[in-house]
Amino acid sequence: MNMKSNYGQILYEDQDHKFIWLGADEKEDTGVIMTNQYLIIHKGRGILLDPGGLHLFSRVVSVASRFISLDNIDAIFFSHQDPDVSSGIALWLGVTKAKIYISELWVRFLPHFGLIDTNRIVPVNKPRMALPLGGMDLEILPAHFLHSVGCHCLMDPVSRILFTGDIGAADIRYTGDSLMVEDFESHLPAITGFHKRYMASRKATSRWASMVRRHDPVMLAPQHGRIFQDENVSRFLDWLGSLDCGVDLLDELYGDA
Amino acid sequence: MNMKSNYGQILYEDQDHKFIWLGADEKEDTGVIMTNQYLIIHKGRGILLDPGGLHLFSRVVSVASRFISLDNIDAIFFSHQDPDVSSGIALWLGVTKAKIYISELWVRFLPHFGLIDTNRIVPVNKPRMALPLGGMDLEILPAHFLHSVGCHCLMDPVSRILFTGDIGAADIRYTGDSLMVEDFESHLPAITGFHKRYMASRKATSRWASMVRRHDPVMLAPQHGRIFQDENVSRFLDWLGSLDCGVDLLDELYGDA
Repeated sequence: MNMKSNYGQILYEDQDHKFIWLGADEKEDTGVIMTNQYLIIHKGRGILLDPGGLHLFSRVVSVASRFISLDNIDAIFFSHQDPDVSSGIALWLGVTKAKIYISELWVRFLPHFGLIDTNRIVPVNKPRMALPLGGMDLEILPAHFLHSVGCHCLMDPVSRILFTGDIGAADIRYTGDSLMVEDFESHLPAITGFHKRYMASRKATSRWASMVRRHDPVMLAPQHGRIFQDENVSRFLDWLGSLDCGVDLLDELYGDA
Repeated sequence: MNMKSNYGQILYEDQDHKFIWLGADEKEDTGVIMTNQYLIIHKGRGILLDPGGLHLFSRVVSVASRFISLDNIDAIFFSHQDPDVSSGIALWLGVTKAKIYISELWVRFLPHFGLIDTNRIVPVNKPRMALPLGGMDLEILPAHFLHSVGCHCLMDPVSRILFTGDIGAADIRYTGDSLMVEDFESHLPAITGFHKRYMASRKATSRWASMVRRHDPVMLAPQHGRIFQDENVSRFLDWLGSLDCGVDLLDELYGDA
């Protein structure tokens, strides 16, 4: 499974359920951070995960349409408020009837992206929250301060894939390489700098890692970079949960200031 | 000085130098968080501070134009990457020749707001950095994790006003009340909830507060809410530097997750 695909890739599939990576293409590799988008379909109803900014819209809408009619997309999940995650919100509200799930912390900030109907926003306002899809429940879990102060991940109990937002993100270019992390040690240089700087503290990473272990996902699917699967899931959680990051390293960031 | 003004208000003025609040109007009070924008002019050259999202653009451009020709705006400072701060970036690049100053952490995220010329972005990549304006230097100072992981404030050594971004923000409605905090104690309910939830930790707030004390500003001008001046500056810094917030309160946010 490589990253050049412009057609998406199915990560999990059974009779009722699919978890799909929506692809990427090389045109987008122009000084903009590479992003992944995902689509979950259950019994014909769909949810998009972090469908992304304005300039990705045409590709994401076209790849998603190969798998599901836009009319059947019931929900859009935003892990947090960054432009690469959510700046296409007004376009997505226009082409779907979906409700938007995002931390309650950002509801009043989203209208700054343009005119949107705030009645279609469902504020995530509990530590964990069910997100109904086609008769099943996905589970919204906390990921606060990793990196956004109001941040969530999304557990799919059928595929057992956890969408992690920016957690696990790798700063990589689009290439023909595997979408999956193949060798954890050699992937570390692509994730270490990002996590040390963007994740808020080891207290936050270790708390998240122990929560995730209890949910026992088989894949961690981030918004940037490669997917962790099988034994690399626990390797990543062990690594992240013991990483000094963010405010732990505040002296370096302040220097002489 | 009240908050209903649609004409801006001069906070500091001498022969060469002005620090101006660019006003607000009641039309904007529709479920969107209230924001302040500012303009500093030195010897005829200007800089805009967090000029804001798309839907504010027409008002901010029109008020700013009363004080300076858009051609003389040399710089735009973004405290961080949130939509209420920076989603108007493509419009501002269109109507001015300004360079954009923002944390290096967000440079590759900004193109997700739309097509922009990244050559006009100056990444803030040092703990403190000079920002030249009309022959003087403003000083960019760190404010990381308050709330964004890559976040700055801007000290104006002439007016001695510190633009603080989200630090000091109050969650208030537009009213005819004073733009200045008049009674610190009675202002606390408007700032406490926001700072406990959006600021990352007491380690980060206390480090920032002690840095700011050394710069001895006479006003703290935030992106939301009211301005702190005179003795309320040190009251606010004492309060903020001893506030448990963010990851200090992680157990509450995780609940049973």
